[in-house]
Amino acid sequence: MTVNVPVSNLPRLVIIGGGFAGLTLARKLKRADLQIVLLDKNNYHTFQPLLYQVATAGLEPDSIAYPLRKILRRQKNLIFRMAEVTTVHPDSQEIETSIGRLRYDYLVIATGSRTNYFGNAQLGEKVMPLKSIQDAFNLRNFVLARFEKALLTNDIDEREALISFVIVGGGPTGVETAGALAELKRHILPIDYPELDLRRMQIHVIEAAPRLLSAMSEPAGEHADKFLKELGVTVWLNAPVKGYDGVKVELGNGKTIRSDTVIWTAGVLGAPIAGLSPDSLTHNQRVKVDNFNRVRGYENIFVIGDLACLPTESYENGHPMVAQVAMQQGRRLAENLMRLQRGKELQPFIYNNLGDLATVGRNRAVADFAHFKAQGFLAWVLWIFIHLMNLVGFRNKLIVLINWIWNYITYDRSIRLIFGGSRFTPTASSKSSSTTSDRKPTTLVL
Amino acid sequence: MTVNVPVSNLPRLVIIGGGFAGLTLARKLKRADLQIVLLDKNNYHTFQPLLYQVATAGLEPDSIAYPLRKILRRQKNLIFRMAEVTTVHPDSQEIETSIGRLRYDYLVIATGSRTNYFGNAQLGEKVMPLKSIQDAFNLRNFVLARFEKALLTNDIDEREALISFVIVGGGPTGVETAGALAELKRHILPIDYPELDLRRMQIHVIEAAPRLLSAMSEPAGEHADKFLKELGVTVWLNAPVKGYDGVKVELGNGKTIRSDTVIWTAGVLGAPIAGLSPDSLTHNQRVKVDNFNRVRGYENIFVIGDLACLPTESYENGHPMVAQVAMQQGRRLAENLMRLQRGKELQPFIYNNLGDLATVGRNRAVADFAHFKAQGFLAWVLWIFIHLMNLVGFRNKLIVLINWIWNYITYDRSIRLIFGGSRFTPTASSKSSSTTSDRKPTTLVL
Repeated sequence: MTVNVPVSNLPRLVIIGGGFAGLTLARKLKRADLQIVLLDKNNYHTFQPLLYQVATAGLEPDSIAYPLRKILRRQKNLIFRMAEVTTVHPDSQEIETSIGRLRYDYLVIATGSRTNYFGNAQLGEKVMPLKSIQDAFNLRNFVLARFEKALLTNDIDEREALISFVIVGGGPTGVETAGALAELKRHILPIDYPELDLRRMQIHVIEAAPRLLSAMSEPAGEHADKFLKELGVTVWLNAPVKGYDGVKVELGNGKTIRSDTVIWTAGVLGAPIAGLSPDSLTHNQRVKVDNFNRVRGYENIFVIGDLACLPTESYENGHPMVAQVAMQQGRRLAENLMRLQRGKELQPFIYNNLGDLATVGRNRAVADFAHFKAQGFLAWVLWIFIHLMNLVGFRNKLIVLINWIWNYITYDRSIRLIFGGSRFTPTASSKSSSTTSDRKPTTLVL
Repeated sequence: MTVNVPVSNLPRLVIIGGGFAGLTLARKLKRADLQIVLLDKNNYHTFQPLLYQVATAGLEPDSIAYPLRKILRRQKNLIFRMAEVTTVHPDSQEIETSIGRLRYDYLVIATGSRTNYFGNAQLGEKVMPLKSIQDAFNLRNFVLARFEKALLTNDIDEREALISFVIVGGGPTGVETAGALAELKRHILPIDYPELDLRRMQIHVIEAAPRLLSAMSEPAGEHADKFLKELGVTVWLNAPVKGYDGVKVELGNGKTIRSDTVIWTAGVLGAPIAGLSPDSLTHNQRVKVDNFNRVRGYENIFVIGDLACLPTESYENGHPMVAQVAMQQGRRLAENLMRLQRGKELQPFIYNNLGDLATVGRNRAVADFAHFKAQGFLAWVLWIFIHLMNLVGFRNKLIVLINWIWNYITYDRSIRLIFGGSRFTPTASSKSSSTTSDRKPTTLVL
């Protein structure tokens, strides 16, 4: 079966993935003489930097995601299809998808990255990732349900395990999630759960490297560490995770922490598509590309965003897997595809790092820019401003801004519904937290 | 196992259900000398009148639901537990719940109603209800996924079945849902799906009675009929549904309509709890109560809201199952429980109907009040005002108002994400709509 797309005389560009890279590319090609087919397994674009706020009851899923059809509705040369792509056949210039086969003239793979469990399958079964809207939604429900469940037991240790949280990974997502949980602990949970002794609620951040935010400057990492400690978060550095059996997290230094909820933000792997030459993959599943984001060995297949690995002098292992790089690669590739059609020479991709930010909580953030660094309130204001500006759509900007102002003034967060079906409903039968049936909501079908 | 609640010398009032009835009762008892235990299977109160807007991509689930702990956080005499109640044991004054047994001095059952399939189990398997946040969320995902799926086929009949909608029931929910779908068809879908011929999108409302909105005045029903027809909705009156096999709806008059989506708003049954005397149940599963909402034969068990059936001269079959009655019964019972404690005489419940409203779309609504009736724009403004005022929480009011203004000005609705896991993802394998695997998302665990 062939994917049902209109007949066209124009060369067909197929873009797989509507994340920052694929979406930027598609939009920049608005005037190109191409038939663009954009495929994504979701019908929306996710603003990943704010997923942690969905997971911690600060924002609604719909506020940080945006329907792709709506973003692209005025783009006449583009067709969107909701589909998962399984295989590329470079010889016949075709891809196989969940909705049929599709021929391409140019192919751009922008499928991004997925959570890395470092080959530890047992871990992957027990921990909670935070990479998608669905992950964030599951995590919110799971976290809120822990507190309802904690009320059902008088066993102090069990209760403590239920209301304690371990975040593995001291990158921006880990730091921001820990900060947001610490503020829930401070301002909201004591009022919602007067029966629980929230001093026993522990929040741990576990990082294998010697410091937090290792992709940012040293002062940024140190400030994040200080801010987290001020909020009551325990930070473990030089502490690789050895295992988690659903009850206890075991660290490399022998320490164990009992917790029902382990949030895994420790790293990502590329999410390539089968069919490319195995030589083109790096050890962490990214695809090796040249300066023009072309996959080595193929004339008309490109990879952009997290999945692309282009080692340079400054970035020996490829660029950081962040939105900024993805958007810049999308923009450059759009130019290059138009140059290609006009027979002009291609321009190499050069990354221009505009700066990095991470927030730890109200009035607390860290920012690294080319010419200055900031910490605390100024960085926090910059963080808010830059995130708002980059959200897609005016309505989303407005709703997020109102929610933020509301949360800031009232010290509250309103999005506290648990609606995940019976798996999230506390029941008396589950004696120990290790044997609960709701252990792994991430694999549930919504 | 016993439910873990603090020890108290006060008499214990257990309220089952945090809907309009139970919540009003709990709040009005703020100063009562009672230990109140409120149980609900969800941790939130649902504003049911706006569920249809969640189902039709107008509002986010979190905007019309409100965490019960947050509403009741300042109420010192109340404990909330998230639990499902299975059985009442009037002899031992105990209830059985998913989190253990609980003794009561007074019991108030406010578990409301559930969808009535009129004993047709086959129907219940194939149609989509609209009674809960989960139902509304499922319906939104299902409806949006129909359009993605319609793009995959060139079979005209199959495509028409995919993008056509049958709403069974011409009460307020049915009328409002049909109106909202008609506006999606008019303003949003043509832009999102330029490849589909949306003239082939049919919306049918099927009503067994001779007119729409039979609980309201005749002019209201006639205007709703006219408004729906103006919006392109087909209205079938005197048309009981005989069956639906997942492909075709069969009407009593012999007519069949092919549709992938049948939304069932045709009626409700009481949702009683096992253990009450069978004599106390009516034919439609409501519980017979006296003037004080006391269940006949029990001194200390009360039923309020949809579940209570109190036949009067004006309402031979009991009061209408609507929010207004529920709130008034909650308020009156609160007064009576306090009178009971003081040894005073109880006051009978007398329903004061403040008016009924239903909206059909932008600028179109119908309103019946004691002293006047309104249709069109004025009724629509009243509808908006009254619904906003009754939403719980200032933030929800504000977010809903902004969404409404936004939707009104832009003719748009932004909440169009499909995020329901793989069941909502279109696949090529499903040849005919009758054999799709995503037929019944309502039973999925989120």
